[in-house]
Amino acid sequence: MRRQKKFYAWGYADEDLTADEIGPWEREIAARYGISGFEVTPPPREEEFTLRKPRLDVPTALQPIVRQDRLTRLEHSYGKAGFDATRMFLREVPNPPDAVAFPENEADVARVLEWCDRVGAVAIPYGGGSSVVKGIEPQATFDKVVTISLRHMDRVLEVDTVSEAARIQGGIYGPAIEDALRDSPLTMRHYMQAYRCSTLGGWIATRSGGHYATLYTHIDDFVESLRVVTPQGTLETRRLPGSGAGPSPDRMFIGSEGILGLITEAWVRLRKKPTFRAAASVRFPDFFAGADAVRAITQAGLYPANCRLLEAREAVPGTAWSDTSAVLVLAFESADHPLDAWMKRALEICADYRGRPDASADEENSHRSGAAGAWRNKFIRAPHYSEHAVARGILSSTFETSMTWDRFREFHAAVTAFTQAKIREVTGREGSITCRFTHVYPDGPCLYFTFGGLLDKRRQLEQFMEVLSSCTAETVARGGTTTHHHAVGRFHRPFYDKQRPELFARALRGAKRELDPKGLLNPGVLIDP
Amino acid sequence: MRRQKKFYAWGYADEDLTADEIGPWEREIAARYGISGFEVTPPPREEEFTLRKPRLDVPTALQPIVRQDRLTRLEHSYGKAGFDATRMFLREVPNPPDAVAFPENEADVARVLEWCDRVGAVAIPYGGGSSVVKGIEPQATFDKVVTISLRHMDRVLEVDTVSEAARIQGGIYGPAIEDALRDSPLTMRHYMQAYRCSTLGGWIATRSGGHYATLYTHIDDFVESLRVVTPQGTLETRRLPGSGAGPSPDRMFIGSEGILGLITEAWVRLRKKPTFRAAASVRFPDFFAGADAVRAITQAGLYPANCRLLEAREAVPGTAWSDTSAVLVLAFESADHPLDAWMKRALEICADYRGRPDASADEENSHRSGAAGAWRNKFIRAPHYSEHAVARGILSSTFETSMTWDRFREFHAAVTAFTQAKIREVTGREGSITCRFTHVYPDGPCLYFTFGGLLDKRRQLEQFMEVLSSCTAETVARGGTTTHHHAVGRFHRPFYDKQRPELFARALRGAKRELDPKGLLNPGVLIDP
Repeated sequence: MRRQKKFYAWGYADEDLTADEIGPWEREIAARYGISGFEVTPPPREEEFTLRKPRLDVPTALQPIVRQDRLTRLEHSYGKAGFDATRMFLREVPNPPDAVAFPENEADVARVLEWCDRVGAVAIPYGGGSSVVKGIEPQATFDKVVTISLRHMDRVLEVDTVSEAARIQGGIYGPAIEDALRDSPLTMRHYMQAYRCSTLGGWIATRSGGHYATLYTHIDDFVESLRVVTPQGTLETRRLPGSGAGPSPDRMFIGSEGILGLITEAWVRLRKKPTFRAAASVRFPDFFAGADAVRAITQAGLYPANCRLLEAREAVPGTAWSDTSAVLVLAFESADHPLDAWMKRALEICADYRGRPDASADEENSHRSGAAGAWRNKFIRAPHYSEHAVARGILSSTFETSMTWDRFREFHAAVTAFTQAKIREVTGREGSITCRFTHVYPDGPCLYFTFGGLLDKRRQLEQFMEVLSSCTAETVARGGTTTHHHAVGRFHRPFYDKQRPELFARALRGAKRELDPKGLLNPGVLIDP
Repeated sequence: MRRQKKFYAWGYADEDLTADEIGPWEREIAARYGISGFEVTPPPREEEFTLRKPRLDVPTALQPIVRQDRLTRLEHSYGKAGFDATRMFLREVPNPPDAVAFPENEADVARVLEWCDRVGAVAIPYGGGSSVVKGIEPQATFDKVVTISLRHMDRVLEVDTVSEAARIQGGIYGPAIEDALRDSPLTMRHYMQAYRCSTLGGWIATRSGGHYATLYTHIDDFVESLRVVTPQGTLETRRLPGSGAGPSPDRMFIGSEGILGLITEAWVRLRKKPTFRAAASVRFPDFFAGADAVRAITQAGLYPANCRLLEAREAVPGTAWSDTSAVLVLAFESADHPLDAWMKRALEICADYRGRPDASADEENSHRSGAAGAWRNKFIRAPHYSEHAVARGILSSTFETSMTWDRFREFHAAVTAFTQAKIREVTGREGSITCRFTHVYPDGPCLYFTFGGLLDKRRQLEQFMEVLSSCTAETVARGGTTTHHHAVGRFHRPFYDKQRPELFARALRGAKRELDPKGLLNPGVLIDP
């Protein structure tokens, strides 16, 4: 029996934050805005929704793998962004999928695509449904919609301990990968906030960013080969450690967001489970001193597994809002060798930029204690707060981008100022914005902005969208990417269109026409038909 | 005044091997085959060629940047493979380009493409002309051919020392990049055998492999953004340290081998010039012991800059053919920190697999002395030997592929046995084959095979092609890639067609139709029109 996910928000139906988590958080925000408390909208219940009648009938042969019940359709109507939960709390689900297919194998996927073709239905590939960019959301303009969830194709099929790789089905959730590897010396370690409820196929389709802050930041580097089912048939790329034979076929599908085919299987690179670890939290007087240290560390070729720079007020509980210090969560991992030389040099670099390690710096498990530990816990629990923010009309969201180091400070200042002004303009109050680096490169960081404010509950969705859209537009106007690892979906389309060369969009359209000539797959994502 | 390249072989017209280099080499091969000496065909002279009359007239406006003289056309007729030199020594150049354009800027490139479109000429993008895969060779089936050489677009336009990157024109030769960076703290260090006479744009178009044996093996990882002139206009990708916004636009052009457009400019990632270095040559009892050590080193996350495993008889002068020991040329580089810990651990791993460092192991400059030094010198001079082998009917060529570690031994044995048998079958004598690793990954090595034999000069080209083609076909039939870093061109097409998924070829064709609707650009490379 599969555990039921919460249809209206992040996580499973049988889990939630505790009162001990919600209470202090709620009181702190109320205090910040000088209000006595919040009107709390109760979470939606399934019975409150009357969904549009399905606009297609399921052929007998497909009935065993297709569902049309209300809960299933509700669950597959939205992703997990703040604007998704907001619409759920408004009880607004005008465009649910007409059916949700759960193929058991590639032949099933092909049969479902044939059915979509026959009846003129849009097909939406669905991984874990953790999209925060409307990547899997049926649109009002679609006549009929079949969402194709690969969650039943969730096995690790083969483990190659010599080459350190595994052949894994696309529909597997993150934890199931590591479970399946439990008795092997290997691990994938592609962790991210959505790890528990997102899939390998989804990671590949959306170019997810994971655990590693340097080197193997995106799923791109894990992929050794792929199997993809398209409306024109199934393709498999060759399993190779490296190749120079033409443009990489894998790279055309990595990031294709379901518009070219469904990723049913991949060989992915693994590594041995780390047995050596060196971890430290390093405190900097401000974010920019920390940024300089991070730049020096990445350019030094030290390749820490973790190198996340955080504003203390965002990461460390009890930090005053006026405290502008920053914390670098730094860790090296290895299954091969002690990491003293690596950490020693990284801390020397930190010291050059006025970074001082916390007392726990040389403890083996400091990543589970101190500032790093507090942050780690917060990171894992954070997605659960979204529905409680939405229920209270609290603005709380994020956007992520990247920028080269030469323009980073100016860019950071401009985006921060813009966001503050925009929140003030839209909500009539001061808001908050903090920044962290989730991934770093020798040529620049991924900037991950978190912003907050207080919304007018009568205009909650409109205000939310206005702030988020304007800030994203601003990052793109100033040269950033519209998304570093959240994907484009339907939300980012207007900004993506400004970022990517028009001729590339045309080339991608040309490629799609060959693989999906009728445009069944996820229309409107990345390109227009 | 630009230095004139040799039209019929590698290098410049005013350089050659010395008699001291040729003598011992020639005698050693003669002795190996029990012959007294070689009939030496003299190198071709320009005057010996009567080229087909150009089939198009150059419009007045383009005359300043287009040449049709014999030497220019000869120089651009072939690449630099053994089969190219062989045809030159046969004085066979039936299909020279009708004209060679040397645009000074992107507007010129666009004007030349418009001209090709207007007169129905094929346009062949040309970098340094070092192709060994018929990548830039006009075909008999082409009605008219304009080769477009970017060699006049050869400047470093901008250096960003903060982000460690530079904006560089596509037509620049390798050494000119480092020359332009001489006064900066930065270096590109993308060295390969063709370095002196190949271009940045050519590297990107062909997915070249360079100096770094791990991590940054291919040019792919250096590219931050691109400018590409296509028949439909010019596109520029955004300069970003990392992005997850759709399939990477850069990756569609990296490896596109001139079929989508001309790469006129790129931002590439650089790094600080190394000031710390730890180098060693490690001797293993055989190649497979060395391979096990290399696998362990790459999987340990040590990331040596050099990690090339060589058969001693190929790399170390004076080694008997019966000596099956192997040498690992190992080096770490850094501009930031001493590398003792790195090298110490790598040598421990080598010792686990019976690898013993040469005496010079801990000398700073051991890469210029001992086995590593001998190899380095041979590596740089090797391309010059090709014409002298051709002049004597000596078979001497290479092919490179990659394979995952789990299948590497079996694959190596099969390809080696196949090549030996094929040389015997085709030439009637025993030949030689050796293998080295030029680049290594946690999941497998790049295997670089060098083979030799003695050809019948009356059937020299036919025999050469039969051996090379059969061996390449065999590597692909056994699951390898047809090319790890030499590109596909026209030579590898039949093998590439077996390797890449048919649906990917269709997608690529769809993309090309959008950017090059009339199919002007390099027809027959990678895909059919």
